[in-house]
Amino acid sequence: MIRVTRRYRFSASHRLHAAGLGDAENRELYGKCNSPFGHGHNYEMEVSVRGPLEERSGRAVDPALLDGLVRREVLEAFEHRNLNEEIAAFRTTVPTTENLAREAVRRLKQNWSTVFPAGPRLEKVAIAETSRNAFEVSAHEIE
Amino acid sequence: MIRVTRRYRFSASHRLHAAGLGDAENRELYGKCNSPFGHGHNYEMEVSVRGPLEERSGRAVDPALLDGLVRREVLEAFEHRNLNEEIAAFRTTVPTTENLAREAVRRLKQNWSTVFPAGPRLEKVAIAETSRNAFEVSAHEIE
Amino acid sequence: MIRVTRRYRFSASHRLHAAGLGDAENRELYGKCNSPFGHGHNYEMEVSVRGPLEERSGRAVDPALLDGLVRREVLEAFEHRNLNEEIAAFRTTVPTTENLAREAVRRLKQNWSTVFPAGPRLEKVAIAETSRNAFEVSAHEIE
Amino acid sequence: MIRVTRRYRFSASHRLHAAGLGDAENRELYGKCNSPFGHGHNYEMEVSVRGPLEERSGRAVDPALLDGLVRREVLEAFEHRNLNEEIAAFRTTVPTTENLAREAVRRLKQNWSTVFPAGPRLEKVAIAETSRNAFEVSAHEIE
Amino acid sequence: MIRVTRRYRFSASHRLHAAGLGDAENRELYGKCNSPFGHGHNYEMEVSVRGPLEERSGRAVDPALLDGLVRREVLEAFEHRNLNEEIAAFRTTVPTTENLAREAVRRLKQNWSTVFPAGPRLEKVAIAETSRNAFEVSAHEIE
Amino acid sequence: MIRVTRRYRFSASHRLHAAGLGDAENRELYGKCNSPFGHGHNYEMEVSVRGPLEERSGRAVDPALLDGLVRREVLEAFEHRNLNEEIAAFRTTVPTTENLAREAVRRLKQNWSTVFPAGPRLEKVAIAETSRNAFEVSAHEIE
Repeated sequence: MIRVTRRYRFSASHRLHAAGLGDAENRELYGKCNSPFGHGHNYEMEVSVRGPLEERSGRAVDPALLDGLVRREVLEAFEHRNLNEEIAAFRTTVPTTENLAREAVRRLKQNWSTVFPAGPRLEKVAIAETSRNAFEVSAHEIE
Repeated sequence: MIRVTRRYRFSASHRLHAAGLGDAENRELYGKCNSPFGHGHNYEMEVSVRGPLEERSGRAVDPALLDGLVRREVLEAFEHRNLNEEIAAFRTTVPTTENLAREAVRRLKQNWSTVFPAGPRLEKVAIAETSRNAFEVSAHEIE
Repeated sequence: MIRVTRRYRFSASHRLHAAGLGDAENRELYGKCNSPFGHGHNYEMEVSVRGPLEERSGRAVDPALLDGLVRREVLEAFEHRNLNEEIAAFRTTVPTTENLAREAVRRLKQNWSTVFPAGPRLEKVAIAETSRNAFEVSAHEIE
Repeated sequence: MIRVTRRYRFSASHRLHAAGLGDAENRELYGKCNSPFGHGHNYEMEVSVRGPLEERSGRAVDPALLDGLVRREVLEAFEHRNLNEEIAAFRTTVPTTENLAREAVRRLKQNWSTVFPAGPRLEKVAIAETSRNAFEVSAHEIE
Repeated sequence: MIRVTRRYRFSASHRLHAAGLGDAENRELYGKCNSPFGHGHNYEMEVSVRGPLEERSGRAVDPALLDGLVRREVLEAFEHRNLNEEIAAFRTTVPTTENLAREAVRRLKQNWSTVFPAGPRLEKVAIAETSRNAFEVSAHEIE
Repeated sequence: MIRVTRRYRFSASHRLHAAGLGDAENRELYGKCNSPFGHGHNYEMEVSVRGPLEERSGRAVDPALLDGLVRREVLEAFEHRNLNEEIAAFRTTVPTTENLAREAVRRLKQNWSTVFPAGPRLEKVAIAETSRNAFEVSAHEIE
């Protein structure tokens, strides 16, 4: 078994503001991330898959298949978007990077078995919002 | 003479859309950066100053003075902001990183001589919008 | 469950010299790190916590609380210090980065439950002494 | 128990071409990596070991011993080499980075117990071919 | 005037061997870089242009035009190639990174005025062969 | 003419304390860098040389000669040292990174013409004390 990690980048904007909370509570909870006009980041996303090494090709995953899936399911949706306004999932859920990583796992799992019927399994997604933090979700925790 | 460069970071959102142009032309000119809801970046800004080494302190610039000036004039204005909506200069000017660097130089020059009456001169500001580009403005080019 | 990792930096000096060993043995064991006047590093420390995503805030940990705890317990003690001379734990223990990581875990666990009574658990601390190494301690291994 | 990771670099060239497949299939499988004259990379290899902290030295592994073993078994063989032509294992096996990581583990395990009779165990080897990917093999999976 | 720098990556292999010198002299001159089967690198290339800020677009260079030119003239030729065997210029010239940077400038200048008739001028190209070196050529030095 | 930059690393400790000033003034001037027991850094030093491309070798500088000179004159003196205590120049001069860069230039110029009688000239030395700053000295400014 081998773990293969591939790294992707996308830039997006968001505002942290929980719908169920008042303005003052939101400001206290999220600080400057609650700023009403939003702000943005260069996100760096690592997708890790795990699978046996296929002896014929010497690979555990076909990188073109993985890149295609990540591009279609995640990058095209998030790249250069306002996460709050343009991603359905974040109309009702706060677009923290925790939730962003969870949403990326959900999107990747949706068509995973079509692209990789016998292939490696998705292990985890980690997203860094800045160079000072990272948020990691294990795929098996997301239904 | 010594050149001292200090590096700062801020996260902000913007939309590239020139007021004087039509929608189609804006889309063609800026591509995905024209996306109507905006997007964002982790900007990395390098401020370079040049001055003689002061023998007593062994320094060409007092880093606390420079950091304070940069924080007051640039970071507090840009950090976690929507550049189009919250910075007066970008109401009428497109917030490209070229213009962002030019605006940073303008802001730093404004009170430079108060903070550094005899001190090093501001040489240039370089801002990277992503890890794949950088935009550099020489201070002497900005009045 | 989500793993959140936050990255911190501090600069410090140390000398590797084991009290129970003779000078020649120390020199052989630690090489140039045994140099009598000490040397120093820019340490990079990653603190990883693991916890359920709190649906209300969309977060697994409040970053301000974690940063505060790390600052009070670790950074204020280590930042710009001579580890051998100014940290009680390293009067008798060699300040290798292994021991530094262990000490950081101990310090973080001390008041962890006060700051995070119901919250995420501390999972591990990893400290890189240079860009060529890293030393990782799991929190559950330290009493 | 502490995990220590040390990072090494080497530059090498390779061509991805599976002996058991036809030219067209190879081109489809490996794309530009099948280019007949080969190409190359700056590989970055992380070797992770795990062991108890030895109280006397404050270390989990003697870095000089590990560096020596890695240099003799892996770096001297791979550094500035054409992997297909100059490494026996890659005469018959495709030199993908998956296989490269597997080969590195095999080479390190060979004389591990001579160098570290009581010492830390080899946990894993991760090799990045570019800054956008990494391939990780657990040592216990390789006989 | 603004300097805009854009960063590109390509992977290639090469062998340093001067046609006009004997084998022993080549070995002494280039050391392990003269290894007969070649080796390779992940090259990182920075292209810097300088021009006035165009007020209408807020840009000093259209990044899509520059990326297209760099891709057509340099990246498509060098990416995943054996520089000695597949680039005509390096049949007779040693593919050191100095020469690689010079060749990149030559290729960019060839159609520069077609793509940028009024636009920014090419200032310099810098290529890093590894993270420990860089080779920079000013465009005006190359006819 | 080509500029070649090579990057080196060393770890050292220092204390910023000007001999001609009182304790209170030193504390105010240098802040935590004045801490009496010293602290340390991983310094990153870039040495830039400029010279014509030698057509025979395709190089502007022989990297082995430059690395040897830098190692003998700078790295062996600074690596794993306490700059204040172990470098004669810093007995009387404050070991700020400005002065460190100036001292490196002085040391490199001393035997430059012996190693490079016809060869490239030393252009500048830049030293970063942390990832947030850099100090650059032009060689021609130092006698």
